[in-house]
Amino acid sequence: MKPVVEDKMVVEPFSVGWDPKDGVMDNPDNHIERYLKNLTNMWIDKNAVEQYLKEYGNTLVYEVYEKEIPHRDGEIQFCSSITHPGKIGKEYFMTKGHFHARRDTAEIYYCLLGKGYMLMEKEDGEFYLEEMYPGRTVYVPGHYAHRSINVGENALISLAVYAGDAGHDYGSIETSGFKHAVIEKDGKPRIIENPRFGKMLE
Amino acid sequence: MKPVVEDKMVVEPFSVGWDPKDGVMDNPDNHIERYLKNLTNMWIDKNAVEQYLKEYGNTLVYEVYEKEIPHRDGEIQFCSSITHPGKIGKEYFMTKGHFHARRDTAEIYYCLLGKGYMLMEKEDGEFYLEEMYPGRTVYVPGHYAHRSINVGENALISLAVYAGDAGHDYGSIETSGFKHAVIEKDGKPRIIENPRFGKMLE
Repeated sequence: MKPVVEDKMVVEPFSVGWDPKDGVMDNPDNHIERYLKNLTNMWIDKNAVEQYLKEYGNTLVYEVYEKEIPHRDGEIQFCSSITHPGKIGKEYFMTKGHFHARRDTAEIYYCLLGKGYMLMEKEDGEFYLEEMYPGRTVYVPGHYAHRSINVGENALISLAVYAGDAGHDYGSIETSGFKHAVIEKDGKPRIIENPRFGKMLE
Repeated sequence: MKPVVEDKMVVEPFSVGWDPKDGVMDNPDNHIERYLKNLTNMWIDKNAVEQYLKEYGNTLVYEVYEKEIPHRDGEIQFCSSITHPGKIGKEYFMTKGHFHARRDTAEIYYCLLGKGYMLMEKEDGEFYLEEMYPGRTVYVPGHYAHRSINVGENALISLAVYAGDAGHDYGSIETSGFKHAVIEKDGKPRIIENPRFGKMLE
């Protein structure tokens, strides 16, 4: 991060190159990579995590490319979100998921490539699951934690766009998890209740 | 428009189908069409407008598909912006262009198809021109009026995303215009000073 007083930072017009085939940004300010070893607690089947690590090593589950935009109201943040294909046991590769720090802020995902779902869940457990495929736009209202889930053979790539001062709150999901999970059953994605809900860190 | 108190309107999660090949939304709340007869004042060459209307009739210059999202801070508005190919004299088909009513709000355009430019101009005349082509994301900061200009043979299609309470101010552009214009010269797009700047309605 640049040492700036964020709400004073001035951004001039710019454009950014972005390959719609692999979601890789030409000249990102940040490239965030999330590897399995740092995501061991977020899956239903803990043994399957160990098994996966033994078999395939520390694997890149998802990554994000972004430009640095001031974190202030009225701004627009955007990033390329890339969730790689794979499964931990029966559970598909997915992002950590998060609420926005400012809970009432929305986000949209425009799917560029791949096949998956956006799981959206309120603190009271109310949830929606929307399909993601190229050309589909998913609207995530405020107050919904959200997570991308890749059920396809290739990377699930979206352009994510959200309010400038939304911020991220990963903590409550890391601790409690989502109440629902998407797993493979008979070769198809199914939604189930997460048996580890409320105790992801145990 | 639905008869709702906008800041009380609750939006549930949803997704929307959107053909990346033609920018047409499956189930839009609004479809805005801008025909040449309602845009006669925005071109440099007024005689060329008359000539175009005689030759081709009242032509669709650009159109927008959008879902209805509450106009409030923290929300995200999005639409599909489609500028058709054509020229009025030497000047390319383009959108009216606008400031945001709330001047400090940003917007991004993700280009899906076509070839063009985003012209961004401050009230003091400072301007930027960014190329638009598939996969390119243009960031329009607050305080810049912005207009899409199609210099290609096919439609210029973008996904536009902006702050929930940005609003639109078309009035100042309708009256004064942009200080700069993009015209064809020797078969190529060139930027020139707009000779009608400040007197578009005369």
